[in-house]
Amino acid sequence: MDDTHYMRTALGLAEKGAGYTSPNPMVGAVVVRDGHIVGRGWHEAVGGPHAEVNALEDAGPLADGATLYVTLEPCNHTGRTPPCTQKILESGVRRVVVAMDDPNPEVKGGGNDCLKNRGVAVTTGVCEAEARRLNESFIKYVKTRRPFVVLKCAATLDGSIATRTGDARWVSGEASRAFVHQLRHRMDGIMVGIGTVISDNPSLTTRLDSGKGLDPTRIILDSKLSIPEDAKVLRLESGADTVLVTGEAVSDTKKAVLRNKGIRVISAPLRDGGINLDLLMNRLGYIGITSLLIEGGSRVIASALQARIVDKIMFFYAPKILGGDDGIPICRGAGPKLMRQCIPIRDMNVRQFGEDIMVEGYIDKSKTW
Amino acid sequence: MDDTHYMRTALGLAEKGAGYTSPNPMVGAVVVRDGHIVGRGWHEAVGGPHAEVNALEDAGPLADGATLYVTLEPCNHTGRTPPCTQKILESGVRRVVVAMDDPNPEVKGGGNDCLKNRGVAVTTGVCEAEARRLNESFIKYVKTRRPFVVLKCAATLDGSIATRTGDARWVSGEASRAFVHQLRHRMDGIMVGIGTVISDNPSLTTRLDSGKGLDPTRIILDSKLSIPEDAKVLRLESGADTVLVTGEAVSDTKKAVLRNKGIRVISAPLRDGGINLDLLMNRLGYIGITSLLIEGGSRVIASALQARIVDKIMFFYAPKILGGDDGIPICRGAGPKLMRQCIPIRDMNVRQFGEDIMVEGYIDKSKTW
Repeated sequence: MDDTHYMRTALGLAEKGAGYTSPNPMVGAVVVRDGHIVGRGWHEAVGGPHAEVNALEDAGPLADGATLYVTLEPCNHTGRTPPCTQKILESGVRRVVVAMDDPNPEVKGGGNDCLKNRGVAVTTGVCEAEARRLNESFIKYVKTRRPFVVLKCAATLDGSIATRTGDARWVSGEASRAFVHQLRHRMDGIMVGIGTVISDNPSLTTRLDSGKGLDPTRIILDSKLSIPEDAKVLRLESGADTVLVTGEAVSDTKKAVLRNKGIRVISAPLRDGGINLDLLMNRLGYIGITSLLIEGGSRVIASALQARIVDKIMFFYAPKILGGDDGIPICRGAGPKLMRQCIPIRDMNVRQFGEDIMVEGYIDKSKTW
Repeated sequence: MDDTHYMRTALGLAEKGAGYTSPNPMVGAVVVRDGHIVGRGWHEAVGGPHAEVNALEDAGPLADGATLYVTLEPCNHTGRTPPCTQKILESGVRRVVVAMDDPNPEVKGGGNDCLKNRGVAVTTGVCEAEARRLNESFIKYVKTRRPFVVLKCAATLDGSIATRTGDARWVSGEASRAFVHQLRHRMDGIMVGIGTVISDNPSLTTRLDSGKGLDPTRIILDSKLSIPEDAKVLRLESGADTVLVTGEAVSDTKKAVLRNKGIRVISAPLRDGGINLDLLMNRLGYIGITSLLIEGGSRVIASALQARIVDKIMFFYAPKILGGDDGIPICRGAGPKLMRQCIPIRDMNVRQFGEDIMVEGYIDKSKTW
């Protein structure tokens, strides 16, 4: 077994923290001695012990002389918990294998260097690409203080997310919808436009088959504060906040009524008649939203792409064709004049969910468009 | 090695005839003796010897006592060539393994039964699904005398085949376009609407990297006979026919001019203002078009789906998003009221071509919509 094998095990453990660690990263660790895994750990939830500490405690005295695999550079500073480097040095671990350096500009390199200086062998970059993908939200957030934005839609093969009557129940199949609930659990926030609230009245909560799951903060773009008072997103059975984002010129009375119900109402500058999404991302980052799932509708999807706030797309396609152009398209608004001015996607990848397919990819910010 | 292994080899050989055998099927055969392939053959071109005959001749006296693998039930009648069953019996082959029975309603079962009655062991159904897929056009044609219809388009991820200005150069990448030329080589006919001829002026010929390749018969839906006289499809450097399909009420003078240029002009009944595609398929089948590739545009795609003439779709998606709804959609026309009334696709499968993906699937005629 080589380093890659043990690091993949650590990455698998890291995944178990998905949804519970924000604004911290997901981290996993294993302690290996004489080719056997003698300790396992992961960062289970924000505020709790780090992965290395859990793995070393699991290993106990067997950590002495062993190798520690950890998916992120161990911390060397006192935050909510004491520095992991200290714990590692005390454990007697002789070698530490790290998937990726700490991307936080303030702590970069500190942990690895500290260990090296104290005589521990350190190998870095093992399974780095996988580790970066696992924590793509965290990496963006610590660098920019803005959320990592995922744009999700479910469409027919000819690109409609609903029929002319607005019917969208259902476009995608059960397996796709179940995956979207896992996504909601993982993301800090979910955002839709007021049009979607009015037409579909979604609750935007997380419903996992296992029953557990965290609801994301529900963010509604509602520049004119026209949300119906009986909208499901205004019900507070969810522990998650609902945030209404309005323009400046809306009724103070209605704002007050909503606030009294426990809803957060924030005013944001407008741009081209809608909320200025670029500035809103700063605001959402400021209130601790490190990752944001945009679920539509067409105008919000197009505006988000135009505002260049989107990092990743997840487009589900169901095995069906609308067959006309009178449905609701994925994007509504003005497109470019030429094909080469389209928004470029890189690293496109396809996954299967039941009979649906899901195309994921990243907005290619290295290109101009 | 088991039967499946040798049959896959035979299927691979059958593929070599792609494009050259219509209206015959692609067929491959291998002769196996003591675990070694001692003869290989395929149906190279219509009018030439059948696959079994080529494989048996390749094997020579080694066929005596051997097993013959053939992807389609051997024929038992005299057509352009003598019956293959006779050749097999003469060769001394002791066992014949067949992938699929002859689907032609007139000859079904004849070859296998003949061999069995003469003491040859016959196994059928080995790799049947692959064999059926390979000859899906042939199977449909011999059963219905109508072409197997493939609908192809290339779109952005949000479902546009061109921008608002009609720009579509290029939606998909080089690898996708190269594959489409292979498709054109394989298909008997290619069909587009007059709108595509006017806006894109395509030549609709086959350009393979290898230089070789057969042009499909070019079929233009032009109900009002408004084709520009300098359209590339009217040029005769291609050996393939160009067929203009018009309504009944068009200028006899223009028809005569076109016919004098060597263009076939056929009149067809209209339906909802366009050519009645359902009836046209009978006509195309009658003139020997066993397979038809529809390449657009939006109105023809939607009409073909609505007329229920489509058997298979091939939708290419490029890694780009138009980002608006002012482009040219995959389908233009009226769609259904409800999502569950969409056209259902079965056996959806995804293939990668360079950075593009291609979704293929079959119209699910077992469902109502």
